[in-house]
Amino acid sequence: MTFDQWMRASLDRVETALEHYLPGTDVAPTKLHEAMRYAVLGGKRVRPLLCHAAGELTGAGSQQLEAASAALEMIHVYSLVHDDMPAMDNDDLRRGKPTVHVQYDEATALLVGDALQSQAFVALTADNGLSAAQQASLTRELALASGSVGMAGGQAIDLESVGRKLTRPELETMHRKKTGALLCAAVRMGALCGEEPDAAAMSALDAYAAAVGLAFQVVDDILDVTADSATLGKTAGKDAKDDKPTYVSIIGLDASHELVAQLGRDAHAALAPFGPRAGWLGELADLVVNLVH
Amino acid sequence: MTFDQWMRASLDRVETALEHYLPGTDVAPTKLHEAMRYAVLGGKRVRPLLCHAAGELTGAGSQQLEAASAALEMIHVYSLVHDDMPAMDNDDLRRGKPTVHVQYDEATALLVGDALQSQAFVALTADNGLSAAQQASLTRELALASGSVGMAGGQAIDLESVGRKLTRPELETMHRKKTGALLCAAVRMGALCGEEPDAAAMSALDAYAAAVGLAFQVVDDILDVTADSATLGKTAGKDAKDDKPTYVSIIGLDASHELVAQLGRDAHAALAPFGPRAGWLGELADLVVNLVH
Repeated sequence: MTFDQWMRASLDRVETALEHYLPGTDVAPTKLHEAMRYAVLGGKRVRPLLCHAAGELTGAGSQQLEAASAALEMIHVYSLVHDDMPAMDNDDLRRGKPTVHVQYDEATALLVGDALQSQAFVALTADNGLSAAQQASLTRELALASGSVGMAGGQAIDLESVGRKLTRPELETMHRKKTGALLCAAVRMGALCGEEPDAAAMSALDAYAAAVGLAFQVVDDILDVTADSATLGKTAGKDAKDDKPTYVSIIGLDASHELVAQLGRDAHAALAPFGPRAGWLGELADLVVNLVH
Repeated sequence: MTFDQWMRASLDRVETALEHYLPGTDVAPTKLHEAMRYAVLGGKRVRPLLCHAAGELTGAGSQQLEAASAALEMIHVYSLVHDDMPAMDNDDLRRGKPTVHVQYDEATALLVGDALQSQAFVALTADNGLSAAQQASLTRELALASGSVGMAGGQAIDLESVGRKLTRPELETMHRKKTGALLCAAVRMGALCGEEPDAAAMSALDAYAAAVGLAFQVVDDILDVTADSATLGKTAGKDAKDDKPTYVSIIGLDASHELVAQLGRDAHAALAPFGPRAGWLGELADLVVNLVH
């Protein structure tokens, strides 16, 4: 199987899983369920892909990976819906469509995010092929990664840092929480869907995810200044306009490019112990790096 | 032990559990963790008390009930914080204090709610004495009760019904989701913290919780027109001002009082099969009924 074939097959499974785990638009309250599906539509499905690729290392089954992937994507989308709201980043374009509070209203956006978060944990604890022990451990991974010491905490630091000059370590801490924690959970959860990996394997996966997560953020910062809104599917140039600290503003464009390349090499180094089974994880790291090359 | 002694002991355990399961204010991001604790402070702890009382029926241990109670209260508080925001009910007083978005700001309120929801699932899957099977089943109960087919769904229906004339069955459906689902989960989760109850016991508990949950809502509607803001700790007369459908507006004050009394009798009838072990659950039903007698 080529990487492209694997990607297409995995993406198909993720869409099927989201379709399965999101409440139907015929279920009351129908407007809320429509809006939840509107929010989830589109997107690159980076977290589900990382989850599926990591599952290859531990022989995880499709059904198990689908539940974990759907849960990860629901958490990611809830965070986008809330972050886009006027009280936060106040953005009106996401994945090439009007954001949820623009398409519907602010109250609906608030509830869509809230309900997507709950639904993620419903998916993890459904009749999904995972053992009770796996359901409990995946719930814990996802809850910690998305909560106040993870993603929500990173967003809090982000809001406090607007207009302030961050040092590079401060910027890295923010991103490690805001986007890194959930990307790391995606890799860990994928691996935990199969035979439980040992501590050394988990820590190698953490190192891989940390490198890819940071690369992903630096790429995002680069594209914000080099790409246009149509390409991004969201408003370009917004970081500078909002006076947000970014890698480009702190270390410059050239050094940001060099950093992305270095992080790609770090990701591959972390995967070395796994040999060829880690092939898709390596390809996904390259995919991120190549977005700016 | 008298009911008052049991209440005091249970409430002490709930405060200890919340203290234990909420991240410390010395943990980064400190402002977010402070705001989470500010939001959780105060409150009658109705859901934790129902959880503890139901645990008596199945020999549930304290440690297990504390984790479940803390999770329930965090979900309840997250819903209050989000419901109070300007995009929803726009209220500035809660539990006798300024609401979170007034005391801090809207972005913080949004993140406090989001992070409290995650933290509830962290508490359920911590090293808390619950087996993996119990952690998974409690996670599922709580996620379903708080999501789009439960609490968040009820809030969506509530928002759509402002200014519209609801029938009594429509009003009941809304409340069954908006407040009933989480109260029902509180009772079920308490029971599930011990020896797993059989289907007949669970369905008796559901009937009890449905009666208490509805009584609780009718009482709330009555107090909104008969009590003042200082007594309530939140803005009185707000339902009428917002043109919200309530039991008082649909069936009148006298019939609302009679309904509360009937629901109290229904709650006791549902508990009959359990005998004296259900004593605290019966007393809690009386407590709700007596708020308006």
